[in-house]
Amino acid sequence: MKKYVYFFGPGGAEGMAGMKALLGGKGANIAEMTNLNIPVPPGFTISTEACNEYFKNNKKYPDDLWEEVEKNITRLEDVMGIKFGSNSHPLLVSVRSGGRASMPGMMDTVLNLGLNENTIRGLIEKTRNERFVYDAYRRFITMFSGVVFGIKKKKRKTEDGQEIEINQFEEIMDKIKNKYNASLDTDLNVNALKELVEKYKLVVRKETEKNFPEDPKEQLRMAINAVFESWNNQRAITYRKLYGIPDNWGTAVNVQAMVFGNMGDTSGTGVAFTRDPASGEKRFFGEFLLNAQGEDVVAGIRNPFPIEELKNNMPEVYKSLVDIYQKLETHYRDMQDIEFTIQDKKLYMLQTRTGKRTAAAAVRIAVEMVKEGLIDKKTALLRVEPEQLDQLLHPTVDPKAKAEVIAKGLPASPGAGIGKVVFTTEAAQEMASKGEKVILVRQETSPEDIAGMNMSQGILTVTGGMTSHAAVVARGMGKCCIAGCKEIIIEEVKRQFRVNNTIIKEGDWITLDGSTGMVMKDKVKLIQPELSGNFAELMQWADEVRRLKVRTNADTPHDAQVARDFGAEGIGLCRTEHMFFEAKRIDAVREMILSDTEEERRRALSKILPMQRGDFKEIFKVMEGYPVTIRLLDPPLHEFLPHTDEDIEALAKEMNVPVNRLKEKANSLKEFNPMLGHRGCRLGITYPEIYEMQVQSIFEAACEFAKKGKSIEPEVMIPLIVDVNELRYTKERLTKVANDVMERMGVRVKYMFGTMIELPRAAITADKIAAEAEFFSFGTNDLTQTTFGLSRDDAGNFLPFYLEKKIFPKDPFVVIDQDGVGELIKMGVEKGRAVRTNLKVGICGEHGGEPSSVAFCHKIGLNYVSCSPFRVPIARLAAAHAVLKEGMADTISTTA
Amino acid sequence: MKKYVYFFGPGGAEGMAGMKALLGGKGANIAEMTNLNIPVPPGFTISTEACNEYFKNNKKYPDDLWEEVEKNITRLEDVMGIKFGSNSHPLLVSVRSGGRASMPGMMDTVLNLGLNENTIRGLIEKTRNERFVYDAYRRFITMFSGVVFGIKKKKRKTEDGQEIEINQFEEIMDKIKNKYNASLDTDLNVNALKELVEKYKLVVRKETEKNFPEDPKEQLRMAINAVFESWNNQRAITYRKLYGIPDNWGTAVNVQAMVFGNMGDTSGTGVAFTRDPASGEKRFFGEFLLNAQGEDVVAGIRNPFPIEELKNNMPEVYKSLVDIYQKLETHYRDMQDIEFTIQDKKLYMLQTRTGKRTAAAAVRIAVEMVKEGLIDKKTALLRVEPEQLDQLLHPTVDPKAKAEVIAKGLPASPGAGIGKVVFTTEAAQEMASKGEKVILVRQETSPEDIAGMNMSQGILTVTGGMTSHAAVVARGMGKCCIAGCKEIIIEEVKRQFRVNNTIIKEGDWITLDGSTGMVMKDKVKLIQPELSGNFAELMQWADEVRRLKVRTNADTPHDAQVARDFGAEGIGLCRTEHMFFEAKRIDAVREMILSDTEEERRRALSKILPMQRGDFKEIFKVMEGYPVTIRLLDPPLHEFLPHTDEDIEALAKEMNVPVNRLKEKANSLKEFNPMLGHRGCRLGITYPEIYEMQVQSIFEAACEFAKKGKSIEPEVMIPLIVDVNELRYTKERLTKVANDVMERMGVRVKYMFGTMIELPRAAITADKIAAEAEFFSFGTNDLTQTTFGLSRDDAGNFLPFYLEKKIFPKDPFVVIDQDGVGELIKMGVEKGRAVRTNLKVGICGEHGGEPSSVAFCHKIGLNYVSCSPFRVPIARLAAAHAVLKEGMADTISTTA
Repeated sequence: MKKYVYFFGPGGAEGMAGMKALLGGKGANIAEMTNLNIPVPPGFTISTEACNEYFKNNKKYPDDLWEEVEKNITRLEDVMGIKFGSNSHPLLVSVRSGGRASMPGMMDTVLNLGLNENTIRGLIEKTRNERFVYDAYRRFITMFSGVVFGIKKKKRKTEDGQEIEINQFEEIMDKIKNKYNASLDTDLNVNALKELVEKYKLVVRKETEKNFPEDPKEQLRMAINAVFESWNNQRAITYRKLYGIPDNWGTAVNVQAMVFGNMGDTSGTGVAFTRDPASGEKRFFGEFLLNAQGEDVVAGIRNPFPIEELKNNMPEVYKSLVDIYQKLETHYRDMQDIEFTIQDKKLYMLQTRTGKRTAAAAVRIAVEMVKEGLIDKKTALLRVEPEQLDQLLHPTVDPKAKAEVIAKGLPASPGAGIGKVVFTTEAAQEMASKGEKVILVRQETSPEDIAGMNMSQGILTVTGGMTSHAAVVARGMGKCCIAGCKEIIIEEVKRQFRVNNTIIKEGDWITLDGSTGMVMKDKVKLIQPELSGNFAELMQWADEVRRLKVRTNADTPHDAQVARDFGAEGIGLCRTEHMFFEAKRIDAVREMILSDTEEERRRALSKILPMQRGDFKEIFKVMEGYPVTIRLLDPPLHEFLPHTDEDIEALAKEMNVPVNRLKEKANSLKEFNPMLGHRGCRLGITYPEIYEMQVQSIFEAACEFAKKGKSIEPEVMIPLIVDVNELRYTKERLTKVANDVMERMGVRVKYMFGTMIELPRAAITADKIAAEAEFFSFGTNDLTQTTFGLSRDDAGNFLPFYLEKKIFPKDPFVVIDQDGVGELIKMGVEKGRAVRTNLKVGICGEHGGEPSSVAFCHKIGLNYVSCSPFRVPIARLAAAHAVLKEGMADTISTTA
Repeated sequence: MKKYVYFFGPGGAEGMAGMKALLGGKGANIAEMTNLNIPVPPGFTISTEACNEYFKNNKKYPDDLWEEVEKNITRLEDVMGIKFGSNSHPLLVSVRSGGRASMPGMMDTVLNLGLNENTIRGLIEKTRNERFVYDAYRRFITMFSGVVFGIKKKKRKTEDGQEIEINQFEEIMDKIKNKYNASLDTDLNVNALKELVEKYKLVVRKETEKNFPEDPKEQLRMAINAVFESWNNQRAITYRKLYGIPDNWGTAVNVQAMVFGNMGDTSGTGVAFTRDPASGEKRFFGEFLLNAQGEDVVAGIRNPFPIEELKNNMPEVYKSLVDIYQKLETHYRDMQDIEFTIQDKKLYMLQTRTGKRTAAAAVRIAVEMVKEGLIDKKTALLRVEPEQLDQLLHPTVDPKAKAEVIAKGLPASPGAGIGKVVFTTEAAQEMASKGEKVILVRQETSPEDIAGMNMSQGILTVTGGMTSHAAVVARGMGKCCIAGCKEIIIEEVKRQFRVNNTIIKEGDWITLDGSTGMVMKDKVKLIQPELSGNFAELMQWADEVRRLKVRTNADTPHDAQVARDFGAEGIGLCRTEHMFFEAKRIDAVREMILSDTEEERRRALSKILPMQRGDFKEIFKVMEGYPVTIRLLDPPLHEFLPHTDEDIEALAKEMNVPVNRLKEKANSLKEFNPMLGHRGCRLGITYPEIYEMQVQSIFEAACEFAKKGKSIEPEVMIPLIVDVNELRYTKERLTKVANDVMERMGVRVKYMFGTMIELPRAAITADKIAAEAEFFSFGTNDLTQTTFGLSRDDAGNFLPFYLEKKIFPKDPFVVIDQDGVGELIKMGVEKGRAVRTNLKVGICGEHGGEPSSVAFCHKIGLNYVSCSPFRVPIARLAAAHAVLKEGMADTISTTA
């Protein structure tokens, strides 16, 4: 006979912590505590197997299950010395679901099961507290009716004819409160509660066409069935699909003797953490209430007391509690979140589970537990979720500071920024060059604003979403950004913005919180990130473990330095076009674009050459000893020209060229789908002089650097390759330029030519491309756009809807789409390495700093990931996790 | 000892026609003719193996090769009775390359080899024609110097200081002509020719620092080397790469005794075809010249005579020639292109090869040869290239007609059209509705012009390339189109266009030739295609052979009817958006777009419903008994709104809505990359009412049809799927609509729901999608755009350059890119069928009518291809070819 039911009680439990698959997280932990001789109200757990059998057998119990349940009830009655359904000493139980993986929101609970017209009398006799008993009774009916009968909301018409949904039980409660002139539940007297119970039962009769069940065993059976059924309700199915939890795991059912914290001032209930979940400090941390039931602490009806005060109320109980929490933490070797109830000075533990914590606490607890000898370094690393680190890396608004929030937009790039408002890139540059801190406020940003954004402490835009230009560039720069703040109206002429009745003028101070989207008036106090100490130690351990290198995407010496400080091991993507936008250069760039002949273009390019060479020298200095991947010019030329008639006219005047000529040029460069247009190597092939200038400046900078005895490895990256012929055509010319420079300067540097794999065809024909490319860098932003046929700039009209409806489980621009884009990447790596064994392969899309994507990159054998500077630590930890989780099944949290 | 040299001469040849791999096309055919006892100047062929050995051995002859050559010279001397290098009866030879596959432009030829200061005396003695001999000598030196020494062009400064490239030999020739007051080469007397020879030799001495080689054997050896070397010159390597000819095929070398057609009026030379290569008529067709060498006929210096006249000049020779041509055609069972020389009344055949022919001739010859019992039907099918048929399917400008060409643009869609000029869609519709034929002339077309294009005989645009909107739509409609005709200036206000000094007013007649790009004044006579008779018979044979079904892309009953007449077996792509553009509907469509609520949208859609239902009824009528794949709305909504401020204002007035509201709407719908934007099923998911209306109208039409006892199979196609969830979401709702209609109308029709696979991710996740899709249709236009990251509309700036530089061997929008897009299609088919064995798979991009793409579709097991009506016959024949070529190696023409 198969065993389906596991008892726990005085003398030990039939289960243990390791049996989560069978008993669920809650059941296993209760058994474990029982085995540790920690006082737990006794009871039994019906296994997940029973649930699975139930569904397999067309919703029938497996043979003997009910018999086993009845036997365990008898055993429970025996250890408690009271009886289920007794009219003198009745046993009450709680019935709770509890799966292998935590599935919050699916959890159904019925308390006080066993109450009926008969048992309440016994309970009144036993407790001498009629009010307490009727209060428990009305709670039981409410919970049971919700969980078992599904009686919840009903449509009603209000007096003015509107249709609303109301909870029938709440409706009755409100009427009774009115009748008895009570404002709180606790104000209701016994008579009121009695009337409530009668009215509740009427609702049940009306809704189910039956009387409320009186037989406690029938109640139990119905509650068990309801918990089983909850495994397959729509909500649970969707949740499982979303988190990849298998349908055949099933849920366990925990039936446990009730203990009461609300039996007077020698009773109570509380929740506590074995360490401070906010700071991670090693101290007992929690709250309790006297004469209360569990939900009262959580519900916040009364103000609970700090846990230390329990020492004064019940010193013995407090001492036991401290012993127990220490025992539990040592036993589980992790910070625990515990729940307890005191019934008449007797302490019962109701639950223990791993405690949730802030990023700061996670880091501190992990590192300190290693020092305490509780865990090893690998375990410590796995205790911190890489994504959490983001909270630690940016300055944040001090939560204690006073702040006047004037508007709320989308939290587009985390961190906080304080500065004086400016409305143009020019103003930003001008004020910043005087040492002022500025916040750039724009309707929306365009590539022309790069310089201004770079000079600002933060960016605030009126239109545009989480993936708008402002958002993407700001995240890349590690600057805070609030996008799509639609309440704001910019009044350019008046040099101010208006939001409701507040007017903010150019030069006024504001504070942005990019993590919440809050726009605040004036300067608000910030907290700077603390990146040394525990954090640095943990990152050091991560580096010892990981095999994937972590580089950064950086276009400026400043960004490169930030990334180095965060531990970047080189640059994976240095975009050269951002250098083209800087103040003086844009003129030369525009001169080049307006040129009609190659000669004219070369003349304009020769003006840019020394500036670009200067950029590379600075960047090489910061990245000494590391590889630097430089992507040659990528965007279509029209991005460098203004678009509105007005701006074109202004520029024509400035450049002293006829307006019509400029307009014609701008028109001739206009594209229907710029993303799929004349850009990347297509530019480099049709105007070879552009790439030639860039390669010349790269190698002149590198050679100068090498002549000083310093080492740098430029990796020249040709963007947007779809066919090996493009690469061959381009590389042939550029290799010549590189060799000419090295010959002229009399020094050789180590270098590579490679390509970005950012179009599906490049991945599919990677074997051919690898014949010419010494490295691949997957540009997953564009690869995602083309693989999905989805423009990031235009996705705002439907992508949010797709995510809401779970048509896409995740935003593919945030988390690598392993089924589609990931397949192409795998194909690219395999085909490329088949031809060139030592092919260096990395990724430089925004996914390079997203933990699940980093894990994917590790799994398929990339050499490195490259991400924005502020995500470097996240990638380092994620890369360590990837190693530590090798061979593990896909990780699903199994905490209860 | 390996045999490298194959003799041919009186008594037979060592080679034969089947030995093309070893002897090359030319050598094998010469051997074959020799074996047929056809008079051929004797000689020998050095095999391709010798060439390969030469390169393998570091450019040395294999052992004994030279010895073998010498032996064969001796044999040749014996059969000719004259000697190489003899000063009394010298043997002269021609040396020609000749590979297994035809490689025009790579072929080097040296005639008259063996001449030197010694042998010319023998030849003069023998021919008693000093002038002839010196003429031959100077020709020999010129050819030999070019082929062997590579002496060609030289830079010179002209009198006014410009640098030009000139041929040194031609320069000398010009000087001599001046000196001797001769205008033609033939005017030069012996002395002039002697001087020429001396001067030529001086050039050789200067360039090579050696004397011109006198020893005939040395000359021969050098010529053989030069032919071998020509196999690996850059031109040849590129050509082979382009046409997929293996590098290890090598070239053969043909050494053949010279015969002379220029030895007086009993000599001559000619070329002829065994049937008329223009019409295919069975008659001897050719030209000859007396006292001339082969190149004179081709060069057109003198006017040749029709071949019949040879009967008068040399009846015996003519009779032999007729015997020979008949023998050759019967032997080769194909129309032959022959070359002959008559030396002193003796006929020699120099070459026979398969003759090139027009499409009309190809069809007629193929069908007639089957009737004559020369070939079987399968061979006949393979004799006509599918692509050639395009010439036959459209009306064409009568080449004999007088026409005044006023401009030339890109031949964007073949055929010819005559009509009165109109400049707007409205005018086109108005005049066409009165029965007038019109030509729509536009700066460029947009989707709003569809209705006007549909009403026109042809379309002429000023801007836009071969893949512009006008070009693509016109090809789809089978209408002629000339795009990018930049010489034209449209003067809208004056309702006229200007080209140079010609003014064409609205209402003036013009004629377009879409096959050449010629714009002609007035009405020019056209020839209508002849699609019955031989053509119909051949297509019938193709249908008996092919396994791939051929459907058509058609949106109107007219197009559907044209396609049925061309043999289409259903519709593979019926785009519903074209129906939205028609005059009255566009108003309702715009009303829908301007709606703010679902209710308003449904109200507008309900106006479109009966019209759309009407369309489907008409189309079903034409396609009775066949499947019709209907694609639900695909383009982004902004395509239905005007774009310029002016047009928006006009529309606002017309619709009686505030201009600002319309502008705002147009602005909010604007997209950066519409191709990757809010379109396809993304529209259907966010505005489900649109697809619901469409499906309702499809099923109402189908049910009405079914109620009349007629059969139709609507296949509802959801466009732009990237994830199975989109399909599931959409299909669930639409199946309900379909069932509701069928229930309401009390009849059931056979139907399917499926999807277009037009984005890389759809192909990659085809296994998941096939769980919901009953059919796939590969939309290779968009699939090519996304796989390449290449917007067809924007490719004009670089794609032509890519094709010119062979970076892309073919335009991927014309010929399926098998390496990239093709891989995705294969993956999609395999993954899809793995999940759903009976998945119906087709293709509906423009590639569906391109022969090599059709062959690819056949190879990977598609069920059908769908193409524009006018390409249906091409696809039918291509599908038959695909069957007939199964198991053959990749087909490379092996004609010499």
